[in-house]
Amino acid sequence: MENKISVVRKEHFNCAHRLHNNDWTDEQNKSFYGKCNNPNYHGHNYNLEVTITGELNKESGYLIDMKVLSKIMKEEVLTPFDHKNLNLDVPDFKELIPTAENISIVIYNKLANKLDSKFNIKIKLYETERNSVIYPA
Amino acid sequence: MENKISVVRKEHFNCAHRLHNNDWTDEQNKSFYGKCNNPNYHGHNYNLEVTITGELNKESGYLIDMKVLSKIMKEEVLTPFDHKNLNLDVPDFKELIPTAENISIVIYNKLANKLDSKFNIKIKLYETERNSVIYPA
Amino acid sequence: MENKISVVRKEHFNCAHRLHNNDWTDEQNKSFYGKCNNPNYHGHNYNLEVTITGELNKESGYLIDMKVLSKIMKEEVLTPFDHKNLNLDVPDFKELIPTAENISIVIYNKLANKLDSKFNIKIKLYETERNSVIYPA
Amino acid sequence: MENKISVVRKEHFNCAHRLHNNDWTDEQNKSFYGKCNNPNYHGHNYNLEVTITGELNKESGYLIDMKVLSKIMKEEVLTPFDHKNLNLDVPDFKELIPTAENISIVIYNKLANKLDSKFNIKIKLYETERNSVIYPA
Amino acid sequence: MENKISVVRKEHFNCAHRLHNNDWTDEQNKSFYGKCNNPNYHGHNYNLEVTITGELNKESGYLIDMKVLSKIMKEEVLTPFDHKNLNLDVPDFKELIPTAENISIVIYNKLANKLDSKFNIKIKLYETERNSVIYPA
Amino acid sequence: MENKISVVRKEHFNCAHRLHNNDWTDEQNKSFYGKCNNPNYHGHNYNLEVTITGELNKESGYLIDMKVLSKIMKEEVLTPFDHKNLNLDVPDFKELIPTAENISIVIYNKLANKLDSKFNIKIKLYETERNSVIYPA
Repeated sequence: MENKISVVRKEHFNCAHRLHNNDWTDEQNKSFYGKCNNPNYHGHNYNLEVTITGELNKESGYLIDMKVLSKIMKEEVLTPFDHKNLNLDVPDFKELIPTAENISIVIYNKLANKLDSKFNIKIKLYETERNSVIYPA
Repeated sequence: MENKISVVRKEHFNCAHRLHNNDWTDEQNKSFYGKCNNPNYHGHNYNLEVTITGELNKESGYLIDMKVLSKIMKEEVLTPFDHKNLNLDVPDFKELIPTAENISIVIYNKLANKLDSKFNIKIKLYETERNSVIYPA
Repeated sequence: MENKISVVRKEHFNCAHRLHNNDWTDEQNKSFYGKCNNPNYHGHNYNLEVTITGELNKESGYLIDMKVLSKIMKEEVLTPFDHKNLNLDVPDFKELIPTAENISIVIYNKLANKLDSKFNIKIKLYETERNSVIYPA
Repeated sequence: MENKISVVRKEHFNCAHRLHNNDWTDEQNKSFYGKCNNPNYHGHNYNLEVTITGELNKESGYLIDMKVLSKIMKEEVLTPFDHKNLNLDVPDFKELIPTAENISIVIYNKLANKLDSKFNIKIKLYETERNSVIYPA
Repeated sequence: MENKISVVRKEHFNCAHRLHNNDWTDEQNKSFYGKCNNPNYHGHNYNLEVTITGELNKESGYLIDMKVLSKIMKEEVLTPFDHKNLNLDVPDFKELIPTAENISIVIYNKLANKLDSKFNIKIKLYETERNSVIYPA
Repeated sequence: MENKISVVRKEHFNCAHRLHNNDWTDEQNKSFYGKCNNPNYHGHNYNLEVTITGELNKESGYLIDMKVLSKIMKEEVLTPFDHKNLNLDVPDFKELIPTAENISIVIYNKLANKLDSKFNIKIKLYETERNSVIYPA
């Protein structure tokens, strides 16, 4: 994307979750998801990086106002997710297993609904310091 | 502590928890603990740093074998805590509120039971990148 | 400090500053402070870690409510310092050279005025990833 | 870019700056740029990552000598920018607002003038731990 | 790669190595590789990030099981490389200079042999906090 | 140490080393030091933090000039250690096993010889992100 520029904004939120597929037996779930299937939930500090790509506004010298981007991330992601149980408290995951992959796709869709369609959006979500997801690739 | 030396070993574990005092009303709990009181739990990636202090073994050049220290931390802390709900799955917190302060004291006591009493032990526990606890001070 | 516990809270702020001693000649200042003496200022992202030490409140499981500590840090330090020129905009440095050492002492005094005297306070201030100050030692 | 390889070199520099558009009123500037418009400047520790992409030199096993890349970054960026006021001390920003976006484009152009045109160059500039820019996208 | 998703797994290993081209004179080697040519070797903590890209498995909510990816990284890279001398102990570098670029290509090939060909693989290898390599670009 | 202040300076260096006690059999060494005993060496990126404590110079606002401290660290530690084999290239470890503990004590003694005796010195040496040593405790 020559002639385009990106900005990246980082926020974080803390959640409980459990990986469990209702269509599988308990044994299948435990075998596949391992300790992530713990019935009483476990949790993570999620670090979220949102990359916005587009054309620079030469008048302001901004691609997008980072205060605006941060506000949208807070309203769309941190307010509904932070200090929540993703499985029980967040309607997006009533029918969807809250893997880091699915959380990233849900966040992408929430932000795409609020940001100007002239922007390209990319999500990077760290579930731990060692495991992260990028969507879209 | 002149003439003494310390080693620090870092490990991490991921848990769900909830801050709630059973002797208080729900309103008191919600008012005091805020979003940490969420009934369905939330969670964290805990980073644990254990500092051991004592006299150097001049023959080996070690204070303590880090492989041994890491193994004790895994057996005493990571195996019972990682990917668990501290309130529901860990007996230490059946009667004790799992604040970062109390988790640190519990970890201190578990390690003090297993490590040679000639060593001084200090716990640093990060609940988030911005909030941590040190015990004893 | 056996039987005591500490909590650490991290915040950050961004400032311009210049190191210059009005009692010295320009040459002395330039020779001593080097590029930190640049007349038009330079700047830093300061990372501030405040450690509070005292006795655990066994009822709440808290030493101090981190939300309260964070609020005091914001009111006493971030609001007056963030996105400011320390030399020109912050009265504390009208007569005091804003070295990391002096900034730490000023922050210590501001927080000591607001926090209960039963608490011991320690400041760690990172001026860069490689340079930091601890007060009191 | 199959069959190509990239190397990334990280350096840092510290500057004062102010965001202000001379074609706007003071009120417009303050309203749009917020605290970044502070008349007496503020500052940042900038972390700069330069990614160079091209074909591996199979004889040396290097894409480019990192010592050479680091030297060019120091001469072209750190020497003119570090411990400076971007608005007042750096001619590139006499007519250009020193947003992170514009700083990245200026750095890209400076490095593109010095590096062999067979290399593709990408700039990532962190203004804070939470805000960064990538150019070109 | 719209509609695709990536996961990133981080591991680390520690090695000794030396950069030396047997076809060059000692003087050429010393002049070109500098202190990396030290005859008695030096060493690094390598941080390895492997990015896997493909289509999400909607049944499991996973792109690839991170436990499986981590296991393959351990078997293919950490077991043969960790706490080794790359030049003397690792057959891949008997004829190949262990620059970060070449190490990345070797790791890519090892993982590509073990991972399903439906996945796209990318390697990022940090030799120090300031120097890293990405392959393929 | 009330009324005293500390500054911390961070530098890094990269070395090969091997842990081996000449008074023990090869089997004892392999059994005790494990993979750290690899005959062909392995290596690390060492991160070194030096803390200097003393009384503030009120005229300059400095405890010690960080440029001076950095220069002493480079001359006393980085020049002799960086990109070297600690066992073979550094005389301090001809008779001393280069454990992180012993490296820290050697660095402490080197710096204590060069710094004004009015300063208290403390060394923190990271051998990996997870293992570090503090001397004196």
